Amino acid sequence: MNTKSVSNDTLVNQLRWRYATKQFDPTRKIPAADWQALEEALVLTPSSFGLQPWRFIVITNQATKEKLVPVSWNQRQLADASHVVVFAVKKGLGAAEVDHYLARMAEVRGVTRESLDGFRNVLLGFLAQPAEQFNPQHWAARQAYIALGNLLTSAALLGIDACPLEGIEPSGYDEILGLAAEGYQTVVAAAVGYRAATDKYASLPKVRFAPREVITHVA
Amino acid sequence: MNTKSVSNDTLVNQLRWRYATKQFDPTRKIPAADWQALEEALVLTPSSFGLQPWRFIVITNQATKEKLVPVSWNQRQLADASHVVVFAVKKGLGAAEVDHYLARMAEVRGVTRESLDGFRNVLLGFLAQPAEQFNPQHWAARQAYIALGNLLTSAALLGIDACPLEGIEPSGYDEILGLAAEGYQTVVAAAVGYRAATDKYASLPKVRFAPREVITHVA
Repeated sequence: MNTKSVSNDTLVNQLRWRYATKQFDPTRKIPAADWQALEEALVLTPSSFGLQPWRFIVITNQATKEKLVPVSWNQRQLADASHVVVFAVKKGLGAAEVDHYLARMAEVRGVTRESLDGFRNVLLGFLAQPAEQFNPQHWAARQAYIALGNLLTSAALLGIDACPLEGIEPSGYDEILGLAAEGYQTVVAAAVGYRAATDKYASLPKVRFAPREVITHVA
Repeated sequence: MNTKSVSNDTLVNQLRWRYATKQFDPTRKIPAADWQALEEALVLTPSSFGLQPWRFIVITNQATKEKLVPVSWNQRQLADASHVVVFAVKKGLGAAEVDHYLARMAEVRGVTRESLDGFRNVLLGFLAQPAEQFNPQHWAARQAYIALGNLLTSAALLGIDACPLEGIEPSGYDEILGLAAEGYQTVVAAAVGYRAATDKYASLPKVRFAPREVITHVA
């Protein structure tokens, strides 16, 4: 059960291998089985309370990818990547989303909906009577970033390149993808595929602060 | 170079294996080499513009872990875990942080600081003249969640358990860890270690929405 499936070196080497790919090879598409694994990884992403306040829009349609370029600071990598993932979150989280989640929990775990009433109260209380500086939309957006981090690491381990896309106009995405009408809003995106042999960024040394600068030990 | 180091099945199986561990085995500590790999993974986390607006506080000291329990909704798993990571971000990101980053970039890539002036202007413009609904503190917090997602996935692949801790009082953490004085603020935390054999949550079916509910394809 508690097995170590990947060596320390493999993990670290793959995270060193990855970089924010600026130029994708437009001729290389991610094999279906590999993409399926990345979608499963996305679905399995943990979230606070398990609420999964997100939707992942997976775009392979060339015309749609091209439409997103102008609302993405004209970053071409979007159009050349094999797949684009848009991370969106539900607007106005409330009782409807909590109940939808609890119905799924009851189904998966084979328990009654009533047995989850206590948890329901906790969730509704959390969304309605927030802790310090809490805003449900910010909270939901942060959850989407867990999914982004998960996707970037998962792709690296599978030898698949990716570029997180934060420099985007969320409202432009919402419009192009018809998300607003469905009650969702775009948070962030990622282009996924394979680096072009000509991407000069691939060989640049990775810039990270020294570990002692960003890690403090309280031992 | 572009090697697939981990199989699709390994990735997905490890992400299924992980869960938000509610009860850690207090007698089991993460081996130094494994923890070192997780710290390297944290340091390698991608961030927008590569700015790395974060600090990771790693706590193994039992007294400190115990102090954090009352400002963490009394979640005991914090005290029993082998390691606790607190994700903090810099307050008031500005020219000082940008210049610190560019100095590191010049050092790592062997270029002059002056050659990065254009990039400097982009970064300062980004932080000062925000895009839609942009707030530098929210932006920094989201970056920390990429690191959280990366850590959770990395740990799972190494067969190490973790529990993300969002139910915390950030200001309590800041005080106990002395972060405010250093200009940082707590965003989120994670307990990392090994599940206790008695943790009943380990065997509960994982509750995730059906893929068709959270993934939309634009093909």
